Amino acid sequence: MSSIDDLVSADLAADGQQRRRRGSGGRGGDRGKGRKAPTTLRYRSVLNTRSPSELLSEEGLEAIHDASLQVLETIGIDFMLDEARDRLKAAGAEVQTGTERVRLDRGLVMDLVGQAPAGFKLHARNADRSLEIGGRNLAFAQVASAPYCSDQDNGRRTGTQEDFRNLIKLAQSYDIIHMTGGYPVEPTDLHASVRHLDCLSDLVKLTDKPFHAYSLGKERNLDALEIVRIGRGIDAQQLEAEPSLFTIINASSPLRYDAPMLQGILEMSSRNQAVVITPFTLAGAMAPVTVAGALVQQNAEALAGIAFTQLVRPGSPVVYGGFTSNVDMKSGAPAFGTPEYMKAVMAGGQLARRYGVPYRTSNTCAANALDAQSAYEAMMSLWAVVQGGGNFIMHAAGWMEGGLTASFEKFVLDVDLLQMVAEFLTPLDVSPDALALEAIGEVGPGGHHFGTAHTLSRYETAFYSPILSDWRNFESWSQAGQPTSIDHANRVWKETLARYEAPSLDPAIAEELDAFVARRKQEGGVATDF
Amino acid sequence: MSSIDDLVSADLAADGQQRRRRGSGGRGGDRGKGRKAPTTLRYRSVLNTRSPSELLSEEGLEAIHDASLQVLETIGIDFMLDEARDRLKAAGAEVQTGTERVRLDRGLVMDLVGQAPAGFKLHARNADRSLEIGGRNLAFAQVASAPYCSDQDNGRRTGTQEDFRNLIKLAQSYDIIHMTGGYPVEPTDLHASVRHLDCLSDLVKLTDKPFHAYSLGKERNLDALEIVRIGRGIDAQQLEAEPSLFTIINASSPLRYDAPMLQGILEMSSRNQAVVITPFTLAGAMAPVTVAGALVQQNAEALAGIAFTQLVRPGSPVVYGGFTSNVDMKSGAPAFGTPEYMKAVMAGGQLARRYGVPYRTSNTCAANALDAQSAYEAMMSLWAVVQGGGNFIMHAAGWMEGGLTASFEKFVLDVDLLQMVAEFLTPLDVSPDALALEAIGEVGPGGHHFGTAHTLSRYETAFYSPILSDWRNFESWSQAGQPTSIDHANRVWKETLARYEAPSLDPAIAEELDAFVARRKQEGGVATDF
Repeated sequence: MSSIDDLVSADLAADGQQRRRRGSGGRGGDRGKGRKAPTTLRYRSVLNTRSPSELLSEEGLEAIHDASLQVLETIGIDFMLDEARDRLKAAGAEVQTGTERVRLDRGLVMDLVGQAPAGFKLHARNADRSLEIGGRNLAFAQVASAPYCSDQDNGRRTGTQEDFRNLIKLAQSYDIIHMTGGYPVEPTDLHASVRHLDCLSDLVKLTDKPFHAYSLGKERNLDALEIVRIGRGIDAQQLEAEPSLFTIINASSPLRYDAPMLQGILEMSSRNQAVVITPFTLAGAMAPVTVAGALVQQNAEALAGIAFTQLVRPGSPVVYGGFTSNVDMKSGAPAFGTPEYMKAVMAGGQLARRYGVPYRTSNTCAANALDAQSAYEAMMSLWAVVQGGGNFIMHAAGWMEGGLTASFEKFVLDVDLLQMVAEFLTPLDVSPDALALEAIGEVGPGGHHFGTAHTLSRYETAFYSPILSDWRNFESWSQAGQPTSIDHANRVWKETLARYEAPSLDPAIAEELDAFVARRKQEGGVATDF
Repeated sequence: MSSIDDLVSADLAADGQQRRRRGSGGRGGDRGKGRKAPTTLRYRSVLNTRSPSELLSEEGLEAIHDASLQVLETIGIDFMLDEARDRLKAAGAEVQTGTERVRLDRGLVMDLVGQAPAGFKLHARNADRSLEIGGRNLAFAQVASAPYCSDQDNGRRTGTQEDFRNLIKLAQSYDIIHMTGGYPVEPTDLHASVRHLDCLSDLVKLTDKPFHAYSLGKERNLDALEIVRIGRGIDAQQLEAEPSLFTIINASSPLRYDAPMLQGILEMSSRNQAVVITPFTLAGAMAPVTVAGALVQQNAEALAGIAFTQLVRPGSPVVYGGFTSNVDMKSGAPAFGTPEYMKAVMAGGQLARRYGVPYRTSNTCAANALDAQSAYEAMMSLWAVVQGGGNFIMHAAGWMEGGLTASFEKFVLDVDLLQMVAEFLTPLDVSPDALALEAIGEVGPGGHHFGTAHTLSRYETAFYSPILSDWRNFESWSQAGQPTSIDHANRVWKETLARYEAPSLDPAIAEELDAFVARRKQEGGVATDF
């Protein structure tokens, strides 16, 4: 624990310096002219300066913890892979012969979970983009795994490689997006047997940030590990010493881990790569209708998954993921960014802190359009993320319709919201100079501060300049055609794409990467059942 | 202090019972059908169950406190009313002869501020609508003082009596709106000499919640006091014992209190009515360009105003108001709901708590349209309100364009946001029943919870049902014409107005009220200079 705390303190100090040093750079997007680069170095690392807010009393937290251990002891959980059950049995778990059910004693669970590290560094091919995961650090990943994408010009559609690439380019363009989180949209024009090869290769070439590999069978995991190794220009030994790839492992809630997910843990944890365990527990659907009950189930599933990673390799990097929300009980539709979601996110953070592991949560939204709903659901999610002490934030930009759509405009909205959260989290300067006694005296009663030396020396960088907010008065705004947030967002993503520049990549690495992808394609990629 | 704390504890206990008892009532609006009444008793009192988050370190807080006292001691503040300066001089302040400048020693300021109560009850004509102000209580007031109003059908326009009345009816229709806060829109078709008589009379008749009187000269204050006395059916002595009216006193920043405002304090504080002192300190315009500097000025102005109320009548109810935000330094336009606004709100809360007085803040927004911007600015404001420990929330519903417009649709959006905040603030139930171990066991791995007894007995009231959120899938939503939040809000306020019912009022009171208004109109109302 002390190592991550030290690291955070050091980071905080370094960050403070960085902010001062770089404070005069561009701030956020340039709404009016589209000239200024939209990224600023100040968002490369974000620290949560606010103490996490404890939603649950200590007794409430223990009640959920205890109930979830009871679930693992008495009901058990299905591990749908022989090798996983064999390993669990060898470790002392009770495996019901002829079934996939495994019951885990609380002593065993807590012993294993106790071996998980409090934090870790997730390495990028550009060392400046490597991320500290855990402690007070907040890391934001782009929207992932949407079957559809949408923009104002072309509407909603299934994704293609071009959409995939454009969304990845957008992720690369903003420093507040710290990593990609899978395919932002599924490129359905690429055959499933080779899709991962093209996509992972693009993730190396079009970005220099950490990325994710889907656990859809052992071969894809191995291809991803080889691609990230080539991308970083390191050998297998160094890769094993430096986590450089992450995979999301979803429980198949309720109370199941299926074979590809367990295989993913085996391949990734055994090589010391990062595993983000995430049950998907919608209260009222695959989990009890009460938030507390859904959290009990989430926690049981998360602990089982984390324990298994530590069984595979003690000390391997793992993240506690929460994805508990509710469903609309009238229609069964999933709901996100609700008061119930906020509570679940905050309670999940408390549980993760109880176990001393980093916490994954998400910036969610169920809206179909970039309207007020999309913004309030996102803001409520982010409020909970910050108050709940989230570390690893999936779907931080671009997620709509409960994950069905990656929206180009929502991406821009979220980037703006994330930058505002980052600004909110910077400490308030209360130095004598900032207290401005002299300027207050100079202006005196009845004057104004527009022209003071104090104002003139600061006005360009004094405040965050939002990407989307239209602060013109009603008359000017009307003359401009009454554009709303979606119109601004539409313009901004196109401007951003137009000035995208690929990050530099050693030609030898690009060549090695291309050769690997070509060879694997020649071999037929990965067998698919369709 | 102990009295307000006891009160909050008692309230918390009562509230807990109330929630259980009333939990099966309607929850929020009914988006689909418009049949169910939109108000529920559960929102009549809202307690902030989250501990305030301290933005400033103790040293930072003291630095702002100390600097603001230096401002009052060395720069001073203009009190633009002879009687006010005379009283301050008699109390020991240094009044510069021939000027309006008053310098206040920190001992004098803190002695006076120390006499302000930690909280008070604001009485309504319906006792069930009376409000506790201070401690952990959150009270929400409708938008106030907009020159324009707008709705989707008729666009933006100057306000009329009809608009005024419709907005007041909406405020009455939702329990989450605890009071009105002035005229939601200025009814420009009523002559200024008698406008206050018609409006205040409407506030008694159309609502039974606490309301506000503008301090625009002594006569209007006295008319308002008489109207609220008649409305409550009490005598002057009881009115003086029970604060039943509030007035917002704005400093004319920087560092000035003008005559009507000081007159308002004299009339209201002397009769033990509530005074909400609110400097309006936009960083970079009427205050220094730094948030800390603007807070120094806000605090100096607030302390001077609070001190003056206590000089007029020790122990009279007073609220510390903060309204520090920034301006867009490119255009000079005011900005709201920004990261800087959030910091100012939270620091203002710390200052108010330091002085042991209730804290007034606002739900702000600078957007011109009910788009994503309007929602994220409102949500950021509310996040700061809750984390900052706000008690008395002005402009909580309907405020747009930095206060220039009262929007019918924004009112509905804000009601939804406020209800979601209230839901977020309800404690999470972690009773054994809520932990749902039995249901988890019953469903087991791979099942679902849609049909369990646990779900069936709870599904109708398990979750908040938002007024605006459209959770239909994309296809159903498209078939319905792709309505966005503004379309839903437009429908909802019209439905709400259609089912508005005036709260009951003793005919004798109505008669007395009408007679008073008629007499005052016959007398010509209040002299105006236009």
